Amino acid sequence: MPYLIVTYDIAEERVNKVRKILKKYFMWVQNSVFEGEITEGKLLKCKLELEKVIDKEVDSVYFYSLENRLNYRKTVLGIEKEITGNIL
Amino acid sequence: MPYLIVTYDIAEERVNKVRKILKKYFMWVQNSVFEGEITEGKLLKCKLELEKVIDKEVDSVYFYSLENRLNYRKTVLGIEKEITGNIL
Repeated sequence: MPYLIVTYDIAEERVNKVRKILKKYFMWVQNSVFEGEITEGKLLKCKLELEKVIDKEVDSVYFYSLENRLNYRKTVLGIEKEITGNIL
Repeated sequence: MPYLIVTYDIAEERVNKVRKILKKYFMWVQNSVFEGEITEGKLLKCKLELEKVIDKEVDSVYFYSLENRLNYRKTVLGIEKEITGNIL
């Protein structure tokens, strides 16, 4: 199953909506970063939901898709954040 | 050569210093994301510089290292930012 790293830069007024959608599909691992395994079908569903929320002229969401979770090595400087708090 | 995606969550008072260091080694592609090819030697040098600047109890820098730039597929929703502006 593909493994994805999702990063985003979203205007303040829309960022919580975007996070609520991403949290349904991925793990929130850093302020503007989500990660996780996902099927192509669910990824498409996630993108369609996001497209209804973001302003394509201003906002930016990057999907880095890796063949699987073994395809990368992750190292951390400082703290490793696993953000479990609720999104208001 | 390894290809890296670098993401960070840094306290306001230190973020410009971190960006100045990362800009020497990578391309700034989104508000909290840099990317690029780098040798292991230069990556080590970059990490040592960052370690002098960040507060390890608060700040967070993730290095996603891929074997090479062909190891991932990147798709974009919204705009693709290539941030060339100077860091003040």
